[in-house]
Amino acid sequence: MLIVMRHNASTEDVDSVLAVIRDMGYEGRPIPGRQRVAIGLIGNDGKVNSGRLVALPGVLEVIPVTQPYKQVSREWREDSTVIELANGTVMGGRGIVLVAGPCSVESEEQILSVARSLKRAGVTVLRGGAFKPRTSPYAFQGLGREGLELLDRAREETGMAIVTEALDPEGLEMVAEYADVIQIGARNMQNYSLLRAAGRAGVPVLLKRGMSATVQELLLAAEYIVSEGEARVILCERGLRGFDDHARNMLDLTAVVSVHELSHLPIVVDPSHGTGIRTKVPPMARAAVAAGADGVMVEVHPEPDRSVSDAAQAMYPADFADLVGELRGIAQAIGRDLVAPLD
Amino acid sequence: MLIVMRHNASTEDVDSVLAVIRDMGYEGRPIPGRQRVAIGLIGNDGKVNSGRLVALPGVLEVIPVTQPYKQVSREWREDSTVIELANGTVMGGRGIVLVAGPCSVESEEQILSVARSLKRAGVTVLRGGAFKPRTSPYAFQGLGREGLELLDRAREETGMAIVTEALDPEGLEMVAEYADVIQIGARNMQNYSLLRAAGRAGVPVLLKRGMSATVQELLLAAEYIVSEGEARVILCERGLRGFDDHARNMLDLTAVVSVHELSHLPIVVDPSHGTGIRTKVPPMARAAVAAGADGVMVEVHPEPDRSVSDAAQAMYPADFADLVGELRGIAQAIGRDLVAPLD
Amino acid sequence: MLIVMRHNASTEDVDSVLAVIRDMGYEGRPIPGRQRVAIGLIGNDGKVNSGRLVALPGVLEVIPVTQPYKQVSREWREDSTVIELANGTVMGGRGIVLVAGPCSVESEEQILSVARSLKRAGVTVLRGGAFKPRTSPYAFQGLGREGLELLDRAREETGMAIVTEALDPEGLEMVAEYADVIQIGARNMQNYSLLRAAGRAGVPVLLKRGMSATVQELLLAAEYIVSEGEARVILCERGLRGFDDHARNMLDLTAVVSVHELSHLPIVVDPSHGTGIRTKVPPMARAAVAAGADGVMVEVHPEPDRSVSDAAQAMYPADFADLVGELRGIAQAIGRDLVAPLD
Amino acid sequence: MLIVMRHNASTEDVDSVLAVIRDMGYEGRPIPGRQRVAIGLIGNDGKVNSGRLVALPGVLEVIPVTQPYKQVSREWREDSTVIELANGTVMGGRGIVLVAGPCSVESEEQILSVARSLKRAGVTVLRGGAFKPRTSPYAFQGLGREGLELLDRAREETGMAIVTEALDPEGLEMVAEYADVIQIGARNMQNYSLLRAAGRAGVPVLLKRGMSATVQELLLAAEYIVSEGEARVILCERGLRGFDDHARNMLDLTAVVSVHELSHLPIVVDPSHGTGIRTKVPPMARAAVAAGADGVMVEVHPEPDRSVSDAAQAMYPADFADLVGELRGIAQAIGRDLVAPLD
Repeated sequence: MLIVMRHNASTEDVDSVLAVIRDMGYEGRPIPGRQRVAIGLIGNDGKVNSGRLVALPGVLEVIPVTQPYKQVSREWREDSTVIELANGTVMGGRGIVLVAGPCSVESEEQILSVARSLKRAGVTVLRGGAFKPRTSPYAFQGLGREGLELLDRAREETGMAIVTEALDPEGLEMVAEYADVIQIGARNMQNYSLLRAAGRAGVPVLLKRGMSATVQELLLAAEYIVSEGEARVILCERGLRGFDDHARNMLDLTAVVSVHELSHLPIVVDPSHGTGIRTKVPPMARAAVAAGADGVMVEVHPEPDRSVSDAAQAMYPADFADLVGELRGIAQAIGRDLVAPLD
Repeated sequence: MLIVMRHNASTEDVDSVLAVIRDMGYEGRPIPGRQRVAIGLIGNDGKVNSGRLVALPGVLEVIPVTQPYKQVSREWREDSTVIELANGTVMGGRGIVLVAGPCSVESEEQILSVARSLKRAGVTVLRGGAFKPRTSPYAFQGLGREGLELLDRAREETGMAIVTEALDPEGLEMVAEYADVIQIGARNMQNYSLLRAAGRAGVPVLLKRGMSATVQELLLAAEYIVSEGEARVILCERGLRGFDDHARNMLDLTAVVSVHELSHLPIVVDPSHGTGIRTKVPPMARAAVAAGADGVMVEVHPEPDRSVSDAAQAMYPADFADLVGELRGIAQAIGRDLVAPLD
Repeated sequence: MLIVMRHNASTEDVDSVLAVIRDMGYEGRPIPGRQRVAIGLIGNDGKVNSGRLVALPGVLEVIPVTQPYKQVSREWREDSTVIELANGTVMGGRGIVLVAGPCSVESEEQILSVARSLKRAGVTVLRGGAFKPRTSPYAFQGLGREGLELLDRAREETGMAIVTEALDPEGLEMVAEYADVIQIGARNMQNYSLLRAAGRAGVPVLLKRGMSATVQELLLAAEYIVSEGEARVILCERGLRGFDDHARNMLDLTAVVSVHELSHLPIVVDPSHGTGIRTKVPPMARAAVAAGADGVMVEVHPEPDRSVSDAAQAMYPADFADLVGELRGIAQAIGRDLVAPLD
Repeated sequence: MLIVMRHNASTEDVDSVLAVIRDMGYEGRPIPGRQRVAIGLIGNDGKVNSGRLVALPGVLEVIPVTQPYKQVSREWREDSTVIELANGTVMGGRGIVLVAGPCSVESEEQILSVARSLKRAGVTVLRGGAFKPRTSPYAFQGLGREGLELLDRAREETGMAIVTEALDPEGLEMVAEYADVIQIGARNMQNYSLLRAAGRAGVPVLLKRGMSATVQELLLAAEYIVSEGEARVILCERGLRGFDDHARNMLDLTAVVSVHELSHLPIVVDPSHGTGIRTKVPPMARAAVAAGADGVMVEVHPEPDRSVSDAAQAMYPADFADLVGELRGIAQAIGRDLVAPLD
């Protein structure tokens, strides 16, 4: 940590900063410069309460030098995390994972029909919501346990792994009974009670980036889960809040590259929420693979125009199958491949 | 709801939109224009699944005309909501409410000392966190029930009302035993399980705007609480995520005006989180009152430089007392006043 | 244009809106709804002064239905614009164009050396700045006419087309003598005097999206150029201002898809400014091609660490040559190709 | 400048950073830490090309410690800049300046009528555009020199000072003949040719913050003007691009406080563009004064509903006169006052 002093800071100002640093149990080392003094804080263990320094007299700025996350950091662990799901699908390796399915589980027929066509298209992980976070209290909120049962049936028939969302610590226990991967949604990325519960559930976690979360905050949220003992965390970029409504969200594909540089965790991209409209999903799924994503997560519905939620962004199964071919070509062009389909 | 068709949409396109509208149980009425046809959807009860329409062939755009919130809307209830807290403090009336206190409850001495000086300054509502949502899992997380007990002692001694945060549905029950107002933090604004629980707790709720939430989303989050039966909701603007680090957050004071136009609920402003640095709190507290806020919520600590959290933004008690004088002058200049101090 | 009335608007309110519409020379048609009245404005020629309506009593909102741009709109001209540069390079067709070169022209040796290696890598359009817009008045501002002369020499030797930036109407005349494509930078996207001058120069224009410009504003800026007579406009996505500093800018690749839907103009992507750091350029260049961009524009410098400007984002020539191979593979995987190299 | 090395950077990495620093003519000083080495760059004269360092092997981050602006910095000049306009109005002192007038000059009757009523309300500076930057090429672009002549007539009759916008270097010369203050609009904040020309015109300059400009960029733009010799620069906050359409722009009043901390230049606030709608202008004008602005700039039109531009945000003269009374009360409540009206 570096404490930058104002140009006209007095010797007393510098001394009082040094005193506070000592009081917190660290060592301060002044670095005289041409225009101003800066003070290096030595011994930062990631718990320095910088707020005590930033408003002291003569202080211009306090600059963190240490990253606040540890266990998820690539700096502290070079090797990429590789996660093997119950059905053998490997995330974080050379193979790019296809996750697909409807926004909400609506009925047995719906989920089985789409699961079958997705399996044929090469998908090995099925997504589908049983508990839905909705902006309006009057919108459809999911089938609950019945939805989980239906996902289970789809898994049994197809062999696909299941990823589905939990909304609160109570619901998480139920979801953990069924899911191969527990999803934490964007609105809950900083719901710390939920993150901690997810870290104790014994199931891999897919953590979606919050709508205005920085990559650093995403990694800190992952650190919450890992610090409870669950190392199998998959990150997910799903679009940020932007100022332009040409798309529903602003898909930040550069985050894929930044996450790979800063962390050893795998990251997938959700172009469905990331764009919000069907026509934009295929090009952005392709772009995600080209950018180096470890997987894509796409909403597919047997009859999009009848979907009870997110109808506008759900793809038709046939269009999705076409997309898979393009994704495979792109993966191969950059020295990767799609994960092998289930038998 | 208005469905705008593309310039070159065919008659079949228009017909299929009309069919989907009928299928959802509404009536569609085509409005021919000079350049394109638009279709008005008649009978919107706020539950139209617009996703089914937006991606139909020939559709350029779907424009909502009805606001998706109801009970919190000024359009449906003209009179401002006025909330009387247990100690008689009235929020949402002519009087502007002062809410102040430390970020975290740290010790009996700390909370009592600051409560006494705040009462002398005219404050009638004491804030202080017993459960703290922290970006890093390694940061101080609050005293828990002990913190609530300490707040209770401060209330007993001073007569101030207590506002304190709940982080999850379980914790909320405990908080509700002690608090006069339950605070829902910005990171939890769309934690719907928590919102529902708060709406059933029988205690007024202070709902902070999420870091990148629109005013409409804030009102929808309030609607979650109201729809569970709790009409006493106080909104709080606390700064948005911005692109410029000249302040920690981007305080959106215009939201005060927008909320008053769109909703009958009271709104207070938190200039401490809204700016993140002590020197900026007084001018922005003054600006909040001038903009028409129904209250300000300010972090004050007996020894800011020793605060375990948010040290940089906590004010000194003496500076806060000076600020109160300015706020009173501004309130009177715009035909309002501060609420009367406790005896 | 749709004028949405408040729920409790009076008949007089509706009548006065109708009167203002008539006064402006259009026709208003009331559309009664279940909750409120809306008024359709018939005959909108794109010049309606909606400000006169939006603040009238009883008006809730004014919703534009007509797009404000015309000549650049895909709705009014289905066929994509295809632009052939002086050296035969075609932009906007099936072939994806490679534009590359240093940020600034620095010396004859620098520009010739990089031009030769780029030509070998298959690049047909050379970029390089002779006039540099710099955030600080104390930073290097470019070689001026000397830089243009050096670009000319590089063109003569290699046959590449030249794209270079103009900063103001005077400078533009000089740039137009040399350039095959005149670049308008992001900071000048709404410098209307410059746009008009560019539209009259008789040279194709590459228009970069402003740092916080919507796609609609980008298209309107293009409309300025086209409305002066220059139809050969190439748009460029180069990253937006975001709240997260994990990258210098927030590259909005979805804009490629939106531009292709809304307009017939070609669009290229600049991953160098779009990310700001060398390691992120190749993945985002790949993503741009996968998303459907008509070209990529990449900063390459013979010795990046000695570059006088944008050193951090310039690629090494050898790395760029590797990237070209990947881009070709991706282009072919989506049914396109790179434009053929020069002989 | 501080160069932070990666945790696992080698000695060679550190040495090569030191070599590049020496090559640029500065001195590097390694600062060993518990987790990593940082290197202080000594002798920074504000011209360090940090791009040469940021992408070197082993470098994690380069952190600027010196502010890139000098002449406008409060750190280098403590005393606030006080600017006296031709008619004696003082900006930047204890008195808060009222600037008001229509968006565009439309006719002699319009400008004289509004000028008279504004003078009666206590306004001493008249604003009005003769050259208008418009997002659409088809919108009204201003009366040009005729508009300047009309402003001159209003000045002659009322004694008010005139502020009006220049769009390009050529137009600036003409504007400088008439204006008491030349306005540079938000879209041109980084139009460096225009900034330089404005710095040489011999007339005070009002510089509006760009729609997504940081405060630092605003100060750097001001530095362009000052570095050409014109020290009389007035900054203006006019709202930023935000993600929420509850108001046209996101008015960043905290910037007033930040500018006063970082710079000695005065800053005014434009709540008309800052909110975009008439009903929100008075509360935000009041908030601006309470936040410490040195002036407010408000659009007032004799008949807002007939205004050719920005009709929705223009105030009625009578409402504005009421507002002035409130602003005076607020100014006095914080120890300031409005500037005295003209005789």
